[in-house]
Amino acid sequence: MKKRVIDLITMPVIVGAAGVVGKTEGEGPLSQHFDYIFTNDGMGESTWESAEKALCKKAMDIAIVKSGLTPSDIEIAFGGDLVNQCTPSAFGMKDFNIPFAGLFGACSTFALGLALAALTVDRNIYDYAAAEASSHFCSAEKQFRMPLEYGSQRPPTAQRTVSGAGTCILGNAFEGVCVKKVMIGKICDRGVTDATNFGAVMAPAAVDTAAAFLQETNTSPSDYGMILTGDLGKVGSELMTQLLKEEYSIDISGVQADCGNLIFDAAAQDVHCGGSGCGCSASVVASYIRKQILNGETDNVLFIGTGALMSPLSALQGDTVPGIAHAVLLSKKG
Amino acid sequence: MKKRVIDLITMPVIVGAAGVVGKTEGEGPLSQHFDYIFTNDGMGESTWESAEKALCKKAMDIAIVKSGLTPSDIEIAFGGDLVNQCTPSAFGMKDFNIPFAGLFGACSTFALGLALAALTVDRNIYDYAAAEASSHFCSAEKQFRMPLEYGSQRPPTAQRTVSGAGTCILGNAFEGVCVKKVMIGKICDRGVTDATNFGAVMAPAAVDTAAAFLQETNTSPSDYGMILTGDLGKVGSELMTQLLKEEYSIDISGVQADCGNLIFDAAAQDVHCGGSGCGCSASVVASYIRKQILNGETDNVLFIGTGALMSPLSALQGDTVPGIAHAVLLSKKG
Repeated sequence: MKKRVIDLITMPVIVGAAGVVGKTEGEGPLSQHFDYIFTNDGMGESTWESAEKALCKKAMDIAIVKSGLTPSDIEIAFGGDLVNQCTPSAFGMKDFNIPFAGLFGACSTFALGLALAALTVDRNIYDYAAAEASSHFCSAEKQFRMPLEYGSQRPPTAQRTVSGAGTCILGNAFEGVCVKKVMIGKICDRGVTDATNFGAVMAPAAVDTAAAFLQETNTSPSDYGMILTGDLGKVGSELMTQLLKEEYSIDISGVQADCGNLIFDAAAQDVHCGGSGCGCSASVVASYIRKQILNGETDNVLFIGTGALMSPLSALQGDTVPGIAHAVLLSKKG
Repeated sequence: MKKRVIDLITMPVIVGAAGVVGKTEGEGPLSQHFDYIFTNDGMGESTWESAEKALCKKAMDIAIVKSGLTPSDIEIAFGGDLVNQCTPSAFGMKDFNIPFAGLFGACSTFALGLALAALTVDRNIYDYAAAEASSHFCSAEKQFRMPLEYGSQRPPTAQRTVSGAGTCILGNAFEGVCVKKVMIGKICDRGVTDATNFGAVMAPAAVDTAAAFLQETNTSPSDYGMILTGDLGKVGSELMTQLLKEEYSIDISGVQADCGNLIFDAAAQDVHCGGSGCGCSASVVASYIRKQILNGETDNVLFIGTGALMSPLSALQGDTVPGIAHAVLLSKKG
């Protein structure tokens, strides 16, 4: 068996980060932790896709300022989103003039970007590399489900796509939140065809990645301050916990958290199974989680970004919805 | 100014590769060089998207066999395509059980994948890494332009999306076609809004990347056996040559070639401005170009993969079409 977990040697540090969100997310429990909250979901733009571009741009802008760098210091940005052909990322990034590697990993995009950015800095390819991801509730609903104007009823298993974006800039530093290990996920398909139940789709991928990571590193859930998924929501989190127990005898019940559950107040905000979308884990990890680690509230956060690799067309064609999950171990350094 | 060209230390070698194509491509001038030619464009599948999945799968299958490896030896595959949410790559890759990093770079995807795969092997992150990309004429026409059944007339500047896929598996070896240098491109936007003229959209990005690469490496076009774009087609190739001369006084006229021009016989095959699509440069580089270098017909091929970062929606919304171009220097080793 090939080793799948990559140990980082210099353990690159997040030298600048920002999580920005829309109005609803700004009214949720993590409100005080975000770097910027837009007061309406149009973000001053004329289309939902441009609004998402604005989220992407704002997160990158703030992260650069906070890092004390200039855009020309950043040698590569890895990023993507959920919109067809990832246009919000392309339009959001184009004015920064930073070399750009476009990713598609559905909601796992931020974890994938963070992993690749950390690897390139760790192995001395770049001095500074950024990871970014975004999503917008309205661009996602319109594209994946129904135009908002229809007022369609959403099934109870549905998650709400977060309007948000997150950026982390990685570089070598002695202190801060660092990336210790990364693991790229395999595509998992257990035959689920319900594209309104992403939790069920992505949980098996999260299970595969979590189990492989724990086994290969010879660690147990209690070695981590948090096993943080992004974003399984309520149904997926329960399924992941159950499957890990049944199939691998691994109990994560005390330590599992999910960005989609953290970002909204499920009882007060009517978001069904919680948040989702590339921008959910991106905004939560870049702000709240990073601060929690920095402040010593938690440490050794095993962030597992999960994605549902489907399109509206593949769902209509009756295809299954394969999932994928990438892991990034975040820890305090210095 | 930060250095943008990354020199590879071990210079990873393409240890297995395959280019597979559809019927029309198989009737073109590179016919004898492809590893597999499907006899009809349905590839035995019931949808065009599944047909593209079959292309992706076949290229990966053959590349693995030719490398003498097993799928479990390959520690990561970078790949993507043009279809919404890149489903052909996800469905094509899922049965191989190889960790998967999804990319989106439009037609530049293969160059991006090749660059990242080479970097990860070069810096000792993985022993074997694969790059793959695919496209299909029918899935692309349906999604980006008109359903084929309409029989729409295509403008003279249009390129024909190649039905094809290519895979290169990189590893450390003493002999073969190796990757010497890579450079990730910046997003270039010169305000072109004509989404039926990708050559014009992508040429400025190719110019930016080519000029930066040549300047930074202190080389001139005559140092290369080929400056190979993928895929500017006829209009874009002429524009790139003209812009490089006008803006940088660099003359590539004797050395420029384009995967989109190579794959079809423009006079006989009625393909307007040549081929395009992620699968074009992927299939041409993985087969014909690789063999040309291996056989000593050419050497030092500066492969510049170009992409148009647009969606049908962004075009309808009146947005410009930004371009991007990533460079990979291929050479013979041993």
